[in-house]
Amino acid sequence: MSITASLRQLLDGRWSAAKAAARDGLEKAGFEPTDQLGTEEHRARIHEQMRLLADSGHARLGFSSAVGGADDLGGSVASFEMLAYGDLSLMVKAGVQWGLFGGAIQALGTERHHMAYLPAVMSFQLPGCFAMTETGHGSDVQHLRTTATYDVSAEEFVIHSPDPAARKDYIGNAARDGRMAVVFAQLEDHGVHAFLVPIRDESGAPMPGVWIGDCGRKAGLNGVDNGRLLFDRVRVPRSALLNRYGDVAPDGTYTSPIESASRRFFTMLGTLIRGRISVAGAAGSATKVALAIAIGYGERRRQFAAPGGEENLILDYLVHQRKLLPALARTYALHFAQEQLVATMHDGPADEQGQRELEARAAGIKAVATQHATETIQMCRQACGGAGYLSANRLPQLKADTDVFTTFEGDNTVLLQLVAKGLLTSYRDHFGELDVLGTVRFVADQVVESVIEATAARTLLQADLGDRAYHLKLFEDREKHLLDGAARRLRRAGKDNAFEVFNASQDHLLAAARAHIDRHVLEAFVAGIAACPDEEAVALLEKVCDLYVLSTVESDRGWFLEHGRLSPSRAKEVTQRVNALCGELRPHVDVLIDAFGIPDACLSTEM
Amino acid sequence: MSITASLRQLLDGRWSAAKAAARDGLEKAGFEPTDQLGTEEHRARIHEQMRLLADSGHARLGFSSAVGGADDLGGSVASFEMLAYGDLSLMVKAGVQWGLFGGAIQALGTERHHMAYLPAVMSFQLPGCFAMTETGHGSDVQHLRTTATYDVSAEEFVIHSPDPAARKDYIGNAARDGRMAVVFAQLEDHGVHAFLVPIRDESGAPMPGVWIGDCGRKAGLNGVDNGRLLFDRVRVPRSALLNRYGDVAPDGTYTSPIESASRRFFTMLGTLIRGRISVAGAAGSATKVALAIAIGYGERRRQFAAPGGEENLILDYLVHQRKLLPALARTYALHFAQEQLVATMHDGPADEQGQRELEARAAGIKAVATQHATETIQMCRQACGGAGYLSANRLPQLKADTDVFTTFEGDNTVLLQLVAKGLLTSYRDHFGELDVLGTVRFVADQVVESVIEATAARTLLQADLGDRAYHLKLFEDREKHLLDGAARRLRRAGKDNAFEVFNASQDHLLAAARAHIDRHVLEAFVAGIAACPDEEAVALLEKVCDLYVLSTVESDRGWFLEHGRLSPSRAKEVTQRVNALCGELRPHVDVLIDAFGIPDACLSTEM
Repeated sequence: MSITASLRQLLDGRWSAAKAAARDGLEKAGFEPTDQLGTEEHRARIHEQMRLLADSGHARLGFSSAVGGADDLGGSVASFEMLAYGDLSLMVKAGVQWGLFGGAIQALGTERHHMAYLPAVMSFQLPGCFAMTETGHGSDVQHLRTTATYDVSAEEFVIHSPDPAARKDYIGNAARDGRMAVVFAQLEDHGVHAFLVPIRDESGAPMPGVWIGDCGRKAGLNGVDNGRLLFDRVRVPRSALLNRYGDVAPDGTYTSPIESASRRFFTMLGTLIRGRISVAGAAGSATKVALAIAIGYGERRRQFAAPGGEENLILDYLVHQRKLLPALARTYALHFAQEQLVATMHDGPADEQGQRELEARAAGIKAVATQHATETIQMCRQACGGAGYLSANRLPQLKADTDVFTTFEGDNTVLLQLVAKGLLTSYRDHFGELDVLGTVRFVADQVVESVIEATAARTLLQADLGDRAYHLKLFEDREKHLLDGAARRLRRAGKDNAFEVFNASQDHLLAAARAHIDRHVLEAFVAGIAACPDEEAVALLEKVCDLYVLSTVESDRGWFLEHGRLSPSRAKEVTQRVNALCGELRPHVDVLIDAFGIPDACLSTEM
Repeated sequence: MSITASLRQLLDGRWSAAKAAARDGLEKAGFEPTDQLGTEEHRARIHEQMRLLADSGHARLGFSSAVGGADDLGGSVASFEMLAYGDLSLMVKAGVQWGLFGGAIQALGTERHHMAYLPAVMSFQLPGCFAMTETGHGSDVQHLRTTATYDVSAEEFVIHSPDPAARKDYIGNAARDGRMAVVFAQLEDHGVHAFLVPIRDESGAPMPGVWIGDCGRKAGLNGVDNGRLLFDRVRVPRSALLNRYGDVAPDGTYTSPIESASRRFFTMLGTLIRGRISVAGAAGSATKVALAIAIGYGERRRQFAAPGGEENLILDYLVHQRKLLPALARTYALHFAQEQLVATMHDGPADEQGQRELEARAAGIKAVATQHATETIQMCRQACGGAGYLSANRLPQLKADTDVFTTFEGDNTVLLQLVAKGLLTSYRDHFGELDVLGTVRFVADQVVESVIEATAARTLLQADLGDRAYHLKLFEDREKHLLDGAARRLRRAGKDNAFEVFNASQDHLLAAARAHIDRHVLEAFVAGIAACPDEEAVALLEKVCDLYVLSTVESDRGWFLEHGRLSPSRAKEVTQRVNALCGELRPHVDVLIDAFGIPDACLSTEM
């Protein structure tokens, strides 16, 4: 097997069949990415692609066999990830229909909802919306304002938008196609619950009491019809409540397996993490396309010659390599972390602790992968100069479409705070709350800790820069130090200064979360390489991993220097090694790009 | 005078009248930015705005009084900068017509060209192109491939595209409106010269031998009709040569005031720096609009509450301040550097050395200002969440329109190399080429130098972090150290390893260039504050300047730590000071934004 084939096999991994099928689909006529359409034409084109995709059985993967699905959650995410090689509007519209709308019915509903709706959801005969976000509440959805009130006499729920801030906003499928919506609303004093609410009749007209608006033109993703919904005392039957985590009896009695309203809501949200995981995967695919285009261009484009010599390929310039190759290395690293995340989700976490970890990991990988996509696609556009600005060359559309990835399915800053919060909770579970005696011990521990740290730091200063165990230790040590410090700062918070203390520590918390994800991503990369049977491929991947580690260290070398983890001369050596690794990987870029297996139809440019 | 008025007066500076007139123009009906148009509609709208702008006399500022202009180069750039508050397509189309096309005729042509064409250029009756870039040569325009051959018998030049790579590309005004082009071509063995070539007849049809293509849809700036030109032995009269720097007599004799073909070409390019300066100014305006939108949103948007409390304004969160306020401080800093640059250009450099410095400065400020625009507008989009992704809220269009600023008028990486090259030339002029004795002295000097540096570094480590003299010293010292190091590395280059040595030092050279610009920008900021008579405004600007300095130091603290300019504890103190300054400036953001004087029509959003 060629090294490219070995790498491809490794990258495709457990869901290679689902990925192959999705790639074949993208090669079919009518699925080419396009950027020449007005909003309505683009929406119509994507609608048509959705029908074809539904007919191909794509949507079955994510649903249970009881309703005709294939019980393959991992496959559905892997397949979705491939869709992101093509027109990202299709990927998002598919995500809304089958991941969010269908996924919510599957996860939050019970058998009666599954049987009644999921077949039509899969076939796209029932286009639907996931109506959670409101104009006034995007990140803090626990406090959204739409209300659901039970009317005992009619055995109906009344769904209502009490004020303009309660307007459902940015809702995919709402402006044009949606017939039904999963609407999240405050169910009296039981917290947020989800309800199935018809929003359009068979003719496409809004249902009585439902006002539908259009978000209009967006930066990108204009094939998706994002819209707005307002409800004026809309009545739905008692059975419209997706009642897996909370139910209302005909007489109005509320029951739930989870007592706390807040815990109940976060449990519901936890069942919906597929969305976040899918966005992280899609961000990875879009990044791969951009890198394939920009690296390919760098291998053909010549500019400037030494006197009398041939003009140089721009990818032979160090500064050009430094733009593209560390980003390629990080893309590989994130790929392995993503595969591991999908597998953990597919197999299901072992216990509640596992579920919490999965949620934190999904949040963190989503934040890091989408930030990487935003930065890398931007840089690829610039690395292609004027050619990168022409729509015919795909990069503008990739940039515009992915720009909202850092926002939807959770704003990245908020997600990283979630990660940090999770880390602190584990930390507290481990060390416990502190009473006076505990505080004394904690201080004493810190002294011991400092001694241990200083010793560890000395060891870190001596290891070989190419030693993987050292890399792991370096990332682990940074995470631990940041987390210790953050925990110590937050302990200072009392009743009166809680906001001030939290606010002043916010950047510290985010750094801890990023360090945690960096460490986790590196571990996943190492595990991925260990699973590769081809020695030549392993040797290449080791270099890619070196570049991932050292370019990450380089970009955060301020921290490593501040904390005595790198000496000044060692920090300079890191930069030199990054430069050297760029040169060493330069001859292998084609192999590394080809291994992604991006369909040719998705790489068509005029450059 | 209110503090806002004082600041506005200071920012508007010497060309406040031109700025006021341009702002009034943007408030007129028909000039509102729009993002709902298809390519052809948008082009038509901008064409109409161009006519109105020409009728208003806007274009007169940049031309000489001999042809009806106002002899006010500085005013023309200031006025152009204001256009960037509105639809950026209009700004670019105006820049192509009056800055590039008209500017080339003014700067490279002689009286006969001025009299014959400039009145119609100003009135937009003669829409024209600046046809320099080719498909095969964008950065290295000295080696473009279009040819101009003199035919003695006919007393004509023959303009020809010898191969597809010689195609003129990305040419503004070419696809739809241009009637004439300033075409840059290799004039036999005399290097690149500019020729006036009619490309369309009165009916709008291409002239015989001229092929015109359309670059089609772009990421943004779709109101500008970028196109492509190919010439098949197109004949123009001898007088079509813009002959200020080189002329051909009827008998074919070539004469020029500048002997070297290369120096001649760079002299010609040097007369065209207005384009770069204008783009830097436009980048500043676009950045200001994005910050005004995102900061305004952050002051209204609430999300998350402490238990029982009101929801917090997102701009009260430290992480949100850290996204927006250092960017605002840098925007202020760059504003003053831009004003200084415009004044230097307007007054004209004193000598050739001054001209060289002006060119380097224009290149450097353009690179830094456009990178700042790209990063800041991206961040502002994200800071507005989903609302920032809707076209109705301007940020998507600002992002898409400005994305090419880092590329056009010179790719930023290439421009920073130009800056570095200029610095090294001055360095060599200062220290001379080295013979053996010189080398010995150089080595000895370095030893002395190291001792001085170590002493200086110790001083740097003791100064107060809020001391402006210390800031200046810190920036100056970094620049000097980087430049010394780069010069030392490049000395190792011999005949055989020149490319390798240069290539390996490329990132070092770029760092030196960036440090140089940072230092220059800081000096301009300090000079700007010194010119402000309002004490209260000065006090506020001093804080803004502190934030500019310390956030710049923070982001490059890896370097300062590596080179012993910051101790670890001092580096952490820098971060704390940045956080504290964000909090101190928070109450003043409205004043700082209002002082920009952005017309209300340009800030209209639905958020």
